[in-house]
Amino acid sequence: MAAAAPFDQRFGLDRRVVLPGPLALDGGGSLAPVEIAYETYGALAPGADNAILVCHALTGDQHVASPHPRTGKPGWWERMVGPGRPIDTDRRLVICANVLGSCMGSSGPATTDPATGRPWGMAFPVITVRDMVRAQALLLDHLGIGRLAAVVGGSMGGMQALSWAATFPARVGAALVIASTARHSAQNIAFHELGRQAVMADPRWKGGDYDAAEPPAAGLAVARMAAHITYLSEAGLTEKFGRRLQARPDSPDGAKSFGFDADFQVESYLRHQGLSFVDRFDANAYLYITRAMDYFDLAEEHGGRLADAFSPATRFCLVSFDTDWLYPTADARAIVHALNAAGAPTSFVELSSPYGHDAFLLESPALDRVVRGFLGTGT
Amino acid sequence: MAAAAPFDQRFGLDRRVVLPGPLALDGGGSLAPVEIAYETYGALAPGADNAILVCHALTGDQHVASPHPRTGKPGWWERMVGPGRPIDTDRRLVICANVLGSCMGSSGPATTDPATGRPWGMAFPVITVRDMVRAQALLLDHLGIGRLAAVVGGSMGGMQALSWAATFPARVGAALVIASTARHSAQNIAFHELGRQAVMADPRWKGGDYDAAEPPAAGLAVARMAAHITYLSEAGLTEKFGRRLQARPDSPDGAKSFGFDADFQVESYLRHQGLSFVDRFDANAYLYITRAMDYFDLAEEHGGRLADAFSPATRFCLVSFDTDWLYPTADARAIVHALNAAGAPTSFVELSSPYGHDAFLLESPALDRVVRGFLGTGT
Repeated sequence: MAAAAPFDQRFGLDRRVVLPGPLALDGGGSLAPVEIAYETYGALAPGADNAILVCHALTGDQHVASPHPRTGKPGWWERMVGPGRPIDTDRRLVICANVLGSCMGSSGPATTDPATGRPWGMAFPVITVRDMVRAQALLLDHLGIGRLAAVVGGSMGGMQALSWAATFPARVGAALVIASTARHSAQNIAFHELGRQAVMADPRWKGGDYDAAEPPAAGLAVARMAAHITYLSEAGLTEKFGRRLQARPDSPDGAKSFGFDADFQVESYLRHQGLSFVDRFDANAYLYITRAMDYFDLAEEHGGRLADAFSPATRFCLVSFDTDWLYPTADARAIVHALNAAGAPTSFVELSSPYGHDAFLLESPALDRVVRGFLGTGT
Repeated sequence: MAAAAPFDQRFGLDRRVVLPGPLALDGGGSLAPVEIAYETYGALAPGADNAILVCHALTGDQHVASPHPRTGKPGWWERMVGPGRPIDTDRRLVICANVLGSCMGSSGPATTDPATGRPWGMAFPVITVRDMVRAQALLLDHLGIGRLAAVVGGSMGGMQALSWAATFPARVGAALVIASTARHSAQNIAFHELGRQAVMADPRWKGGDYDAAEPPAAGLAVARMAAHITYLSEAGLTEKFGRRLQARPDSPDGAKSFGFDADFQVESYLRHQGLSFVDRFDANAYLYITRAMDYFDLAEEHGGRLADAFSPATRFCLVSFDTDWLYPTADARAIVHALNAAGAPTSFVELSSPYGHDAFLLESPALDRVVRGFLGTGT
């Protein structure tokens, strides 16, 4: 397998590109130019036929297998992407781009509105999952990649994978959709709306025109806490924390304070999740991306019939987790039924895990086997 | 059946009493005096043996079958309590008291701290479900009622019913526990902590020392939204709202705004639930009562073995709803197992409803039959 041309600045870690656009948007209007921050791992084969696009989830980013620049933590899917890993960068070119509307370098409410020279804030156009996918297609054009060997994603990444296959069937050889759904349910929307209201209730939000040094951190932390509860299963929370009390200097085994400190370990955990999130994520971006997810209804985009979204040109693999109550197995099964009706080659597995929705990000040899088996050894 | 003495000011609607106490509290210390706001319906029999105590849930109050003084809405359980109703006020004296720590007249953070002459705020002692029950026992002493024919409650009201039977077994003939649990799970605690953080993140909260005219309404509304999601089932939300869009003046069938208005009906519903709640409830009281519920672990109070909490002197009825994911049927079943081990006469039924936890407050002929059957016709 030959490597891509050496010193091709389009490939590598921490890449940024400004594409002229215009990118037509589902909500009307268009965006131009389109900034995209992305990373690539491995090398493009001479036939440009070994590319795998990895799509990230709500609060993920392009650092799928490189340290996060703000937190220093390992990439969010290092166990899955790398040399010899299930998504094998010895054989594949792996691309991961920060989604449109996010805050890690791609166009979003925190980037500069060319019309004003100031951050877009809430003047940024509301975008959809399909808009994110269209922006990624522009990036692939820029990279000289006509067709993806596969598109892979979990949660909102899975929505993008579905939207890729529906929007550009000729450009997607295979789609691997993990812990995801073809439409946001009323309960999904409710949790997101709760988070948005928490952000917008924070006086520091200021209609989105906050100073980057004084963001609505309190509201965003509450939003993150709410979301985090949905990522874990009841059984997982019980196993991990139960009703165990937080250790204190004067009480190593913990004791009820009969106050409003974080007495229970689960309280400390949630507070920590909320507080650490605000250091790495933008509040307006959180509003925009949750909105895109709530609008996601793939059947609606195709006349109300989900089967009409799909073509037999792409082969599919659906994975769900038995304790995921955010996007339960029934959601994956509905997609599989539609794929069967569309005549698309489809495999489907429900994996067992105590960890709920978060399972797709955690150590799971069973998931590794499924990913490896579905993607094969590639070119 | 003779009526209680006429003009006995202790009985009737909208009663308030200041009891000298002191009331010893689980968290240490004591409360004196103890204010209790309550209502009674029906008449006490000469033998004082026909009293039924109805215990309210987190945001409920003493107005079980009389209009709410602030909202003008019917009592929260009018379909269950009244002449000829399953809890029949033609035959029973029904008592309902605002719980300790709440905000409808009983001692709580919004009442006056006698030491300062100002509202307690966060200086009010943290209380437990058992403290609420002990305060109710003081009220029964005041009313001349030694033993309850029955104690009845749903959700936190069910916790009080369990705590009554465990704390004062000789005073409780029967306990009817609906949609409740013997201990708050990690997930239960997580949702409550989320709500508390939303309140405390509101700058208007001011450490609890807010002006009654400027309460932390935004934070409390978010807390209520979070709680409300847990009261409904996923299926119930889908049935009630699905992904239906909100009608607008220019679009009677609704349309996506590609903005952050409440596009989906479920969003409008949640916003309404949050906003209307803050008009009738105190933010500090919300903190105190959720804390009491999180501390609730009946087994822990009895050496870690739930069966040791119960005596055969009380007969029990447990009711759960199949779609209640807040306090699922497994929680009720755990209580039933403990009651069986304790040798207490126990019946148990899981009812089918699409409405999740809220089902106990909604029209349910099946629940009516269970309540009527368990309580019997009384004296």
